[in-house]
Amino acid sequence: MISDVTIVFEPEGKKVVTSRGKTVFQAAKEAGVGLRSECGGGGLCGKCRVIVKNSDAVSKLTEAERKHLSQSEIDSGYRLACQTKIIREVIVMIPPETKLEYHKIQVLGLERKVELNPSVMKCHLLLPKPTLSDFRPDLERLLNSLSKQTQKAVNLEIDYEILKKLPNILRDANWDATVTIWNDYRIVAVEPGDTSSELFGLAVDIGTSKIVGHLVDLTSGKTVGIESIENPQVIHGEDTITRITFAMADNANLEILQKHAIDCVNRVLHEACRKARVNPGRVYEVIVVGNTAMHHFFLRIQPKYVALSPYTPAVKSSINIASKELNIKVNRGGIVTILPIIAGFVGADAIADVLATGIHESEKLSLLIDIGTNTEVFIGNKDNMLCCSCASGPAFEGAHIKHGMKAVSGAIERIRISPDLEVAYKTIDDAKPTGLCGSAVIDVIAEMLKNGIINPNGKFNSNIKTKRLRKNNNEMEFILAWNNETTTDREITFTQKDINETLLAKAAIYTGCKILMKRKNVEEKDIGRVFIAGAFGNCINRENAKVIGLIPDVPTEKIEFVGNTAVMGAKMTLISMGMREKAELIANKVRYLELGNDSDFNQEFSKALFLPHEVKQTS
Amino acid sequence: MISDVTIVFEPEGKKVVTSRGKTVFQAAKEAGVGLRSECGGGGLCGKCRVIVKNSDAVSKLTEAERKHLSQSEIDSGYRLACQTKIIREVIVMIPPETKLEYHKIQVLGLERKVELNPSVMKCHLLLPKPTLSDFRPDLERLLNSLSKQTQKAVNLEIDYEILKKLPNILRDANWDATVTIWNDYRIVAVEPGDTSSELFGLAVDIGTSKIVGHLVDLTSGKTVGIESIENPQVIHGEDTITRITFAMADNANLEILQKHAIDCVNRVLHEACRKARVNPGRVYEVIVVGNTAMHHFFLRIQPKYVALSPYTPAVKSSINIASKELNIKVNRGGIVTILPIIAGFVGADAIADVLATGIHESEKLSLLIDIGTNTEVFIGNKDNMLCCSCASGPAFEGAHIKHGMKAVSGAIERIRISPDLEVAYKTIDDAKPTGLCGSAVIDVIAEMLKNGIINPNGKFNSNIKTKRLRKNNNEMEFILAWNNETTTDREITFTQKDINETLLAKAAIYTGCKILMKRKNVEEKDIGRVFIAGAFGNCINRENAKVIGLIPDVPTEKIEFVGNTAVMGAKMTLISMGMREKAELIANKVRYLELGNDSDFNQEFSKALFLPHEVKQTS
Repeated sequence: MISDVTIVFEPEGKKVVTSRGKTVFQAAKEAGVGLRSECGGGGLCGKCRVIVKNSDAVSKLTEAERKHLSQSEIDSGYRLACQTKIIREVIVMIPPETKLEYHKIQVLGLERKVELNPSVMKCHLLLPKPTLSDFRPDLERLLNSLSKQTQKAVNLEIDYEILKKLPNILRDANWDATVTIWNDYRIVAVEPGDTSSELFGLAVDIGTSKIVGHLVDLTSGKTVGIESIENPQVIHGEDTITRITFAMADNANLEILQKHAIDCVNRVLHEACRKARVNPGRVYEVIVVGNTAMHHFFLRIQPKYVALSPYTPAVKSSINIASKELNIKVNRGGIVTILPIIAGFVGADAIADVLATGIHESEKLSLLIDIGTNTEVFIGNKDNMLCCSCASGPAFEGAHIKHGMKAVSGAIERIRISPDLEVAYKTIDDAKPTGLCGSAVIDVIAEMLKNGIINPNGKFNSNIKTKRLRKNNNEMEFILAWNNETTTDREITFTQKDINETLLAKAAIYTGCKILMKRKNVEEKDIGRVFIAGAFGNCINRENAKVIGLIPDVPTEKIEFVGNTAVMGAKMTLISMGMREKAELIANKVRYLELGNDSDFNQEFSKALFLPHEVKQTS
Repeated sequence: MISDVTIVFEPEGKKVVTSRGKTVFQAAKEAGVGLRSECGGGGLCGKCRVIVKNSDAVSKLTEAERKHLSQSEIDSGYRLACQTKIIREVIVMIPPETKLEYHKIQVLGLERKVELNPSVMKCHLLLPKPTLSDFRPDLERLLNSLSKQTQKAVNLEIDYEILKKLPNILRDANWDATVTIWNDYRIVAVEPGDTSSELFGLAVDIGTSKIVGHLVDLTSGKTVGIESIENPQVIHGEDTITRITFAMADNANLEILQKHAIDCVNRVLHEACRKARVNPGRVYEVIVVGNTAMHHFFLRIQPKYVALSPYTPAVKSSINIASKELNIKVNRGGIVTILPIIAGFVGADAIADVLATGIHESEKLSLLIDIGTNTEVFIGNKDNMLCCSCASGPAFEGAHIKHGMKAVSGAIERIRISPDLEVAYKTIDDAKPTGLCGSAVIDVIAEMLKNGIINPNGKFNSNIKTKRLRKNNNEMEFILAWNNETTTDREITFTQKDINETLLAKAAIYTGCKILMKRKNVEEKDIGRVFIAGAFGNCINRENAKVIGLIPDVPTEKIEFVGNTAVMGAKMTLISMGMREKAELIANKVRYLELGNDSDFNQEFSKALFLPHEVKQTS
């Protein structure tokens, strides 16, 4: 018989009862304690580091742990949660670098003014009461009044649930009621009295790591509440591929991912409504954007074929689903609209980026880069557009980097290295540093290159004399912060492996830009504007981004950070039906280029692995 | 504490455990034992007669029972089930006249040929497999193939449940699949392989007392199975008003009535499919007709306002609902369509009658009478139509008549009285008689009138000398069958009250016809055809129907019995989209006349109480 055992997670002191033999990782997952993991608990990423207080209460060290942990760490009690089985009552410390923290999320972005023309409208009606000479049925009575008031013929469907209650609603309201109509053809609510001033919608961006929602007053088009939370799917992997693998293993897993996504939207809705004092029952429409994996998770569509060549999604066009079918807790008759996607790795969020920046309507040739684990790149103007997806990996989000972390308090976000090879840095909230986030990753590479610490091929220059450069576990690393400066009492370093990881990431993005430019037959000088979207964008040092060759070499003033354009684009489609049509047009008009399929990809990628990148050879 | 007690229903020997103090009627209802009742257990109708074997096991006789039972009946152990409370273990005999029997139901009717053009169509597709140069999403791939094959642009919605499964369905089917499309705009099924030959629909008439369904092969338009069952709602009252009262008492009751209706449709579906060896998953559409009360019960819409002046239904136009929302067990993506109604007492069944008889397209002036508890009457031709509803009551269905019964085995269906006042009758199945059904009710009045047993005012002629005419419990009655001829060992009689009841019924129908003729400004001679629809129609003696003045005096050859035109009309709309549009047109074109509101109603009704009816006075 499997017996129960208690595990206590410190520093919160959260006590959890689990079954003997489970791993610390499993126990944390069950208890909703967020541990970092990029491999979902497979012992591959080495991110789920914990400190076990009583080592005899757990299983022995595994090979995987010996690989990911240094001897001194092992001596201090460090273990990988996914490798450590619980034998008896145990206390486990979660160090700051392992904890999934709720950090400030980029909730705003570039927004363009759009005409107020939402898909839901309300109409307050004073209906004539039935009499023996006017015995029109309730629905027809209502439709006739509506037609009279709006001065146009109406031929509307009605939600069955509302029809069922219609006779009672109208009589209880004494024939004074407000009708809500969606998309000019469906009655989604009939409410007693005049509620026409209460008309709200929610625009949500379901990101791989965060969910951001804007609660919008659809009578004015104004945002009345913004709410953001971490995506709890992260428990099942930090990147989409790990989560897709999790979903593929079992249909129940896919259900778990959907439930996370739905719960998140409900939490964002609930909080935004609570703070803005809006009744969630007066929210009639939700617009959802997200990358293709999030899109499939949200809809509980098998995402397997998105991950496997030829990377085929289930559906491209936008989808409207009754909120009750998804259990989204807006008005019972409300509608959830998922915007269209472009391809397996270019989702509705990217379409929202295009809408928000307006590059599809501009004369100027624009380059739009939404940097994330997957980076989407668009090039084009009002005449035509090309896009691709770059498997950039999460290096610029602080993941896959030894001391990398998200942009939370204590993360180093800016780095300068002086000619005497001394390091200056700035942390978020000016707190004691715990690690470094994406913007600092760009800085450190650029600064090391400028100071000759590394060569254009990304290798450490062993001729450099500084005690900050050292060999550790057979690997060269550069010390950014000494152990006495940090919260972890360990040095924060940047290793040769980190450099390699970053070069792969930046090469992926640069190659994407480059190939799109080639296919479009344009050069750097032709590019009018470069938009950089994404959560971490605003903190990037634009010069350094060019120094390392993350983006094409255009004049700095042409580079614009636009923030979370995904949620802003979603909001635009919430406010305006016209924008929704444009989203559909963009989805159909943009030509998607599968980079893996491009004959120049390998050559361009190899070149891009140099810093900033191999100069074109004149033939 | 309430203790349990056992009750045994004979002759089936069904044993039921119930609570002490409940009535026999309640116990029977709980156990699903069908007892006749017109008042739903209120002690008013006297129909729930049972024989209690051990009288000391039940409560004492009530006033209501003394009123409805004769002394000799009381001596034989007769009780009213609704008045009899169970004290201890008891055996209760249900006599044949009380049992709700499953009798042969009129399942066919006049049918007109219609063009085969159903709302569901199938298309078998061989899809190109995705490749790196053709990575169209699954749905768009399917739509493109569909467009190519059907040679027209397609812009279809897809059921969310199907979309969820689409990637797996298509790959499991190796890209060889059949798509089912409803109404040219919604994908309701995607099935592996070629299933295009399996396309079925169900047309159902939900009648107050019976449910009839036709299973139709939509590739040919042919009926492949017919199934009919009694409406189990009858437990909650034989007529619609009793059931509406039941529904008004509690929302849970309305739910019970809906569940009965849904279960019935599922039973009809299941049986018809089983016998025809059709997979219910290949049934994609259900067309439902029924009177307005049945319509509201089926949709679980509060029917209260249909019963109260000004008799307003909730909705007039046809409604399409996902089968899964109603729990109708056809294909998961199937659609249930409820045809439009005209008014509170003229339902979708009446529209189906019009469709089936085609009176709305004929040059000839037609009169259509669908006789039931509620009788719907239409007059008109292709130019315009008038209709009304007559509260005829259930006399012609054998109810509210002392020895009346449904048209089941043992019911007298034809009666002749010879000049020597002797009675000849014919029973259904030539069985020993138990009572008389509706057609015999018409005969007995007509024959008594012709032989001077009753006067034109419907009173017994006390000068007539025959031992068949007697006074019983202070009421005159005419003996149709002697006690030694019957199954009940009691005489079958026709009482003064029965005559009065019948006169009210026939007067209601005749007045309906008469007022419609007046409002249309036509006379008997202008009427080209008279259609009599309804379950009992076929057995009526047309001459006698005219003798008693049930219908206007037109040449007999103009009178046509058309049977169950409701289900035939429903079938026509199942086969042809065009018919569905016509149903909508009929609903909007027919003018409904509220008889209770007509200034001539009282005068006409008084006249119609005479046999055949008071002759017009020449002024």
